[in-house]
Amino acid sequence: MNYNKITAPVLDSIKTIVGADNVIVNHDELQKYSHDETEDLVYYPEVVARPQTPEQVSALMMLCNEHLISVTPRGAGTGLSGGALPIEGGLLIAMERFNKVLQIDEQNLQATVEPGVVTEEFMNQAAAKGLLYPVDPASKGSCFIGGNVSHGSGGPRVVKYGTIREYILNLQVVLPSGDIIWTGANTLKYASGYNLTQLMIGSEGTLGIITKIVVKLLPLPTLDALMLASFPTNEAACAAVSAIFRAGIIPSALEFMERRGVEWVKEHDDIAFDLQDGIEAFLLIEVDGTNQDVIFADCEKINGVLEAYFCKDVLFADSSAQKEELWRLRRTMAVSVKSNSVYKEEDTVVPRAELPQLIKGIKEIGGRYGFESVCYGHAGDGNLHVNIIKANMSDYDWNNKLKDGIREVFELTVSLGGTLSGEHGIGLVQKDFMSIKYSEVHFALWRGIKNVFDPKGILNPGKIF
Amino acid sequence: MNYNKITAPVLDSIKTIVGADNVIVNHDELQKYSHDETEDLVYYPEVVARPQTPEQVSALMMLCNEHLISVTPRGAGTGLSGGALPIEGGLLIAMERFNKVLQIDEQNLQATVEPGVVTEEFMNQAAAKGLLYPVDPASKGSCFIGGNVSHGSGGPRVVKYGTIREYILNLQVVLPSGDIIWTGANTLKYASGYNLTQLMIGSEGTLGIITKIVVKLLPLPTLDALMLASFPTNEAACAAVSAIFRAGIIPSALEFMERRGVEWVKEHDDIAFDLQDGIEAFLLIEVDGTNQDVIFADCEKINGVLEAYFCKDVLFADSSAQKEELWRLRRTMAVSVKSNSVYKEEDTVVPRAELPQLIKGIKEIGGRYGFESVCYGHAGDGNLHVNIIKANMSDYDWNNKLKDGIREVFELTVSLGGTLSGEHGIGLVQKDFMSIKYSEVHFALWRGIKNVFDPKGILNPGKIF
Repeated sequence: MNYNKITAPVLDSIKTIVGADNVIVNHDELQKYSHDETEDLVYYPEVVARPQTPEQVSALMMLCNEHLISVTPRGAGTGLSGGALPIEGGLLIAMERFNKVLQIDEQNLQATVEPGVVTEEFMNQAAAKGLLYPVDPASKGSCFIGGNVSHGSGGPRVVKYGTIREYILNLQVVLPSGDIIWTGANTLKYASGYNLTQLMIGSEGTLGIITKIVVKLLPLPTLDALMLASFPTNEAACAAVSAIFRAGIIPSALEFMERRGVEWVKEHDDIAFDLQDGIEAFLLIEVDGTNQDVIFADCEKINGVLEAYFCKDVLFADSSAQKEELWRLRRTMAVSVKSNSVYKEEDTVVPRAELPQLIKGIKEIGGRYGFESVCYGHAGDGNLHVNIIKANMSDYDWNNKLKDGIREVFELTVSLGGTLSGEHGIGLVQKDFMSIKYSEVHFALWRGIKNVFDPKGILNPGKIF
Repeated sequence: MNYNKITAPVLDSIKTIVGADNVIVNHDELQKYSHDETEDLVYYPEVVARPQTPEQVSALMMLCNEHLISVTPRGAGTGLSGGALPIEGGLLIAMERFNKVLQIDEQNLQATVEPGVVTEEFMNQAAAKGLLYPVDPASKGSCFIGGNVSHGSGGPRVVKYGTIREYILNLQVVLPSGDIIWTGANTLKYASGYNLTQLMIGSEGTLGIITKIVVKLLPLPTLDALMLASFPTNEAACAAVSAIFRAGIIPSALEFMERRGVEWVKEHDDIAFDLQDGIEAFLLIEVDGTNQDVIFADCEKINGVLEAYFCKDVLFADSSAQKEELWRLRRTMAVSVKSNSVYKEEDTVVPRAELPQLIKGIKEIGGRYGFESVCYGHAGDGNLHVNIIKANMSDYDWNNKLKDGIREVFELTVSLGGTLSGEHGIGLVQKDFMSIKYSEVHFALWRGIKNVFDPKGILNPGKIF
């Protein structure tokens, strides 16, 4: 596709639409918008516009549609698959001024928020009213809820509460045509035509730009317990994961961490944590609820399972400070790995019971290709983040041979019944691997759907497929 | 669209594909396939084929695509919106031989089932292994799980467990082209391209024919409590619904029933139930879990809320026989109403707290148009089934004026933030009302999506839009 450059008259129109103060053309200021958290990729947009209303987004879309200018929507830029990178230059629409929680409806246990609200801020506002919004990716302190919707985000609590898909009731969306629609209704059930809300979720900004989000909330659990279990092998830890569910418990989080990851967090973050010899893997297990006896009983039951799976030691967090510390251990892992080595993060997901096979296979593939890896993630969902570390790999092999190794990791994932991404999305960096799992029939359906929404292909080009 | 009739050579091909024993052309035998549970509508197919494998479905689709013959997929025929009616004649594909539970995977808490499995049979098989499949529409004893997926079905437990949308992980689908695809992966999370699984759910057999279903299961709750609360007015009962959630309780069912509905069930079904004067509405409230103390505590908390909302009396079911009897009261209501009068059933859904307004408005509209109504349904989800009864309405008014009254009911529903159907689907009988809620932009997107999957428009024509 040959997109047009943004000409002076088009730039003037952009300034008219959003105000000159909300248009960025200066190279230094554009730098911030040239990357997300994906490796070290950099693509500069020609122009950044920062609209504040759906009508402004609509006017920008119509302008770009008319002039065949590529449009890349951007949330907080915390993505890990390059979805917010403006690879064709063009206009980048930064959603940062859509930053209001418009309503928390305590009668209906719903909220209406703008897409540029930071996820954790919204969670806190809901919690202040005794309500739970449970979708908390590791980047919750900086990511936007709009980006979460666009990636079908998860986080540690999916294991009990489900992904963001189960909390989004309705979306206001600006289509590439400039039309502004609501995709559905603010209802808990919906059986009225093809579900456009669900289609938008996870579409990575390629079908429309989300301008309002109606979210379902739950009563806030008042109590929780957190434990860290240590294991002699990755396989033992992963095998315990399935067993916990089979024992009839649904924890509110069930996270896996490799020893190496914990070591790097300790180095990077100076977290006080006694890492003993002979321990190779950890499970961070949270149970929540409203009754202390039930939580105790669940913890005891889990403890029994852990023992049967060769768990060496269980640390119960006995204060909220210690809980916070254990969660920080897990949440900062991606940042710590990144600060210690050149790396690539891959997001694999398999049926839960296949995790031991997956980890074993990843190590074996790494052995053959000469890369090391740190694995951690949402083991309760079968969702493993694989951080591939350059370590001693030569620059040549890193740049040329590694791709084949990653392909093998995904081939293994798919052969175990899984898919390429559980929550990071495909974006730019995984799209070459999509053919491992999907056929030309899938691609034709996806392209067809894209074409229905965006016949000129202006919106977030080059992503997913 | 002008479809072709099934000629003798095409009929021979159909017989070759599925075997002559599984082809029906005799008018008497076709009768069974000429209707579903929607009012008294009757449309005969020209031919019924009963395939047993995805490959047979694929061959039938290719044949009909080539010859431009309309294809209507049919589950158990329990639908309430006419989705399974072959309004263009043509070939009806009856999925009744896809009746096997292929696997219940206790390691991953998943199952793979064929679409022609009766929902309750699958629930029972899962329960025998200590697992819960919670999607149980009132027709669970006869409906097929494939039809449930196609309608995005709900049922009483949605209020705690969510709709079928949250339990379907992956679908095997035969497209109108004859291609057989899996829509996703057997994983709890999925962020790999537009979500075709979610798009298929609720598409009412217009995009493809489902041939295998991968379902998520949960550990089975071991305990439950059931109570029936009686109220002096509909409004008081509905107002109590929101208050229960605001008190921090999520019941596993929260059903509303009008007095008239209960009266008719008593007449029709001879259920022993003492219906006292001054009672106009009931809430049937279930709480489930694994700890008796928690269930008692929840019930007490609910009881407190009920008292504050003018509840007259609360009956606690004290045996499983009594629970069964109370559930039967609710589940047979549709059948009882139907057996007492000519009626039409409409499926409305609004944000939960708008229920009192909705019921009040429906009665007011009925007063102006001269129809009576019996309302009941899943009040916990804001989902109300409105049974409009002919009663004293003249045949002329019933056939001509009533449609305007129903339109007003839906206009009211939409004005309260709701939509046309929560779980029954749009099918044939609601499609004329879709423009109350949706714009030409929505219709263009839906038509576009339909066209991507089914460019010749052979599959289930005339449904949804």
